[in-house]
Amino acid sequence: MAKQLTSKSENYSQWYNELVIKAGLAENSAVRGSMVIKPYGYAIWEKIQRTLDDMFKSTGHENAYFPLFIPKSFFSKEASHVEGFAKECAVVTHYRLKNDENGNGVIVDPEAKLEEELIVRPTSETIIWDTYRNWIQSYRDLPLLINQWANVVRWEMRTRLFLRTAEFLWQEGHTAHATKDEAEKEAKTILNLYSDFAENWMGIPVLKGVKTVNERFAGAVDTYCIEALMQDGKALQAGTSHFLGQNFAKAFDVKFLNKENKLEYVWATSWGVSTRLMGALVMAHSDDNGLVLPPKLAPIQVVIVPIYKKEEQFNAISLKAEEIAGELRKRGVSVKYDNRDTFKPGYKFAEWELKGVPVRLAIGPRDLENGTVEVARRDTLEKEILKMENIVEKIENLLVKIQNNIFQKALDFRENNTFTVDTWDEFEKRIEKGGFVLAHWDGTTETELKIKEKTKATIRLIPLNAKKEEGRCVLTGKPSPQRVVFAKAY
Amino acid sequence: MAKQLTSKSENYSQWYNELVIKAGLAENSAVRGSMVIKPYGYAIWEKIQRTLDDMFKSTGHENAYFPLFIPKSFFSKEASHVEGFAKECAVVTHYRLKNDENGNGVIVDPEAKLEEELIVRPTSETIIWDTYRNWIQSYRDLPLLINQWANVVRWEMRTRLFLRTAEFLWQEGHTAHATKDEAEKEAKTILNLYSDFAENWMGIPVLKGVKTVNERFAGAVDTYCIEALMQDGKALQAGTSHFLGQNFAKAFDVKFLNKENKLEYVWATSWGVSTRLMGALVMAHSDDNGLVLPPKLAPIQVVIVPIYKKEEQFNAISLKAEEIAGELRKRGVSVKYDNRDTFKPGYKFAEWELKGVPVRLAIGPRDLENGTVEVARRDTLEKEILKMENIVEKIENLLVKIQNNIFQKALDFRENNTFTVDTWDEFEKRIEKGGFVLAHWDGTTETELKIKEKTKATIRLIPLNAKKEEGRCVLTGKPSPQRVVFAKAY
Repeated sequence: MAKQLTSKSENYSQWYNELVIKAGLAENSAVRGSMVIKPYGYAIWEKIQRTLDDMFKSTGHENAYFPLFIPKSFFSKEASHVEGFAKECAVVTHYRLKNDENGNGVIVDPEAKLEEELIVRPTSETIIWDTYRNWIQSYRDLPLLINQWANVVRWEMRTRLFLRTAEFLWQEGHTAHATKDEAEKEAKTILNLYSDFAENWMGIPVLKGVKTVNERFAGAVDTYCIEALMQDGKALQAGTSHFLGQNFAKAFDVKFLNKENKLEYVWATSWGVSTRLMGALVMAHSDDNGLVLPPKLAPIQVVIVPIYKKEEQFNAISLKAEEIAGELRKRGVSVKYDNRDTFKPGYKFAEWELKGVPVRLAIGPRDLENGTVEVARRDTLEKEILKMENIVEKIENLLVKIQNNIFQKALDFRENNTFTVDTWDEFEKRIEKGGFVLAHWDGTTETELKIKEKTKATIRLIPLNAKKEEGRCVLTGKPSPQRVVFAKAY
Repeated sequence: MAKQLTSKSENYSQWYNELVIKAGLAENSAVRGSMVIKPYGYAIWEKIQRTLDDMFKSTGHENAYFPLFIPKSFFSKEASHVEGFAKECAVVTHYRLKNDENGNGVIVDPEAKLEEELIVRPTSETIIWDTYRNWIQSYRDLPLLINQWANVVRWEMRTRLFLRTAEFLWQEGHTAHATKDEAEKEAKTILNLYSDFAENWMGIPVLKGVKTVNERFAGAVDTYCIEALMQDGKALQAGTSHFLGQNFAKAFDVKFLNKENKLEYVWATSWGVSTRLMGALVMAHSDDNGLVLPPKLAPIQVVIVPIYKKEEQFNAISLKAEEIAGELRKRGVSVKYDNRDTFKPGYKFAEWELKGVPVRLAIGPRDLENGTVEVARRDTLEKEILKMENIVEKIENLLVKIQNNIFQKALDFRENNTFTVDTWDEFEKRIEKGGFVLAHWDGTTETELKIKEKTKATIRLIPLNAKKEEGRCVLTGKPSPQRVVFAKAY
């Protein structure tokens, strides 16, 4: 087994990096800022993809695919969008290499310079709205409910596996609507879908809200978001859904004939989650022994380890193990029977713990005699000896229990780390220690930025449907209609 | 309904382009050479992906994800690979844009020049083998059986939707093995998997064989391929599987300790199919009315169109239609009930024909009275009135029949367009008209290129397991051990 992880309490950041690498999720590549997603990490991503994709389709969305490259001039068309996105990005300037005449290998062919540079998409609003112009003529063409699974590139100076990488994988939804109401409703539908996914699949409780003007997506009228709390007390934005108003329709001249036969600009939303969710999954639940995966997203839900000395024992145990594995698979549970003879049980236990397999069964000769099996839970690390009768049902129930427990644990953690604060002194002390801090704010970007400068904390969101509560801004003392959520964030 | 398609016999190439666009599969984008894959086209691609992905997994492969960008120097490491791939490609030279001081919008920031240019991957052998160096130490780490679903870019001067685009989607498998035998076996396993997929899902019969030295993948020892014949008599390479020997292991210094504790270079394969398959699917089966899709890959397998004048009729028909649709869906058949009241039945018939839906049901008031339904097959355009009894089973059987018929029709076409030729005169005449031409060849690249120059035909493959038949080269008269397959190709 690989050497022990650095402990979480000792150095959270190092614990995270080691865990991602040792559990076989991802690693840094030879290309600065780009990661390699390894098979075990990708298998989790595939489960995330499949689940979200089913949710998108069951709410009427279709997938499509738009170009990787975007002409540079497209970014200038939406004024605030260009500020946010056309800065740190990968620029394609040439389309050919050639052999160097001086024998220095291949070099860029200066003759093959593009007339207009192409930007590797950091997000696709511009190219998609340029396309929608041809797809939308009348209200009959609306709504357009389209999603794309793709890679995007944002040139980041400081990168961390999954959390911030130059290239990442994501889905981006881009919808077009005849009315403002419908578009706003879509943005909220997706926000709720994301929150449902985060809580019921990833086991991560999230706050739902809207961003301040300052934290808004470049080009949006409103940015809705879900925010999760990591075990080090820092917040992580886990998904955003933007109501774009008519900004992109105006920038790309996308109009439609409404039922009254009048030309109107189209209303838009866009929304996305990315491989960043993998980082959230790791940081929300894992411990010093390794990953803790919620059963619904675990590539392997149950591992069976045989304990034996002699070959006859191994054969008899294997028969039983394959029988249980077969029954579980019939019910849709993914099972690995770890029959490798090159590793001892202790090594295997540690490996599957590191990889976060929710349930481990161990079967020895004594178990065969007694009709029992040792069942270990990854989330609590508890073990118990169970009778073989109805073992499949017992395991299915246990998987449900683990899924719920992981969520409950994360919820308890968040509740214990959410604070209501009314004075600046308290605020500074509290925010320093981490957690969500609910405080009053006077609603100005100026104050928001001052608080950020002083404490590094940002307003994560303005809660939706929170009760209105008059108060005084924690910094300026000016009036405030409701509390907002502050935190230091990833 | 959109205007009629140009007929296939009149102008095949125009028929193809119009069909791809009008059926809603894809269109050209604002970025030269890059296409937009529209929802209906993408739905077919998703079926292709899902099926292949299941096949890869059931043969022991896992998915992973490697970087989009490849450092330029990587291409120089494998001598023949650089010749083949590091030429027409997208080159990233800068990582930042800035506002032009003269107010000309955003411009490339000259300060943000990369030290080493990055190439947008045209294929990923180099970056993957650079990564494998760290993953492989001992024979215990082998085999590595990894696949990636990704976008790649090859700068093409003349592009055609699906068939040849600058950016395309594909899967690329990259495997590492301890022995030559095992790697060769893997390359052939995948060849057979591709052929199984082409024939039994896409309904396209394919020839299996190996490429000549001249047509080989840059960096391969052997390139195996499947070749299909399109309705215009041109061949289309539908998938390739490469035995790479130790070429990439040597270029990237990937060695392992074998069981005898000796260091050896690793053996490799790579293999891929792309969105080009979409082009093959369209060109192999479709007709002047539109797409003809094999049921196994059709996003909609059955469409139901109500025929009515009055609302009561519509309501009664809808009840029946939903009942049939529900029963079919239970059996896993995808059904669309086209209850739009904005279009007439004739329009709907033409639209679903254009989109290639395999089975169309029409239900009118008379059908309700008589307990019947009109069933139309897209492949033969035949219609018949069937009794409602066991209609679900009848439709399921019909879908199987259509799948088989589509394949058989394509197979008959290929057999009628495969010719054995022994003289140069015959060869020139025959090849001009299209089809596969089996002829003797003296085995030299020189002759191969001469034939290509004279006729535009290439050797598509040297058949595997063909009977050895001594003969004389059709051009030079020199001895030849077996016939090879010539054709003009996409």
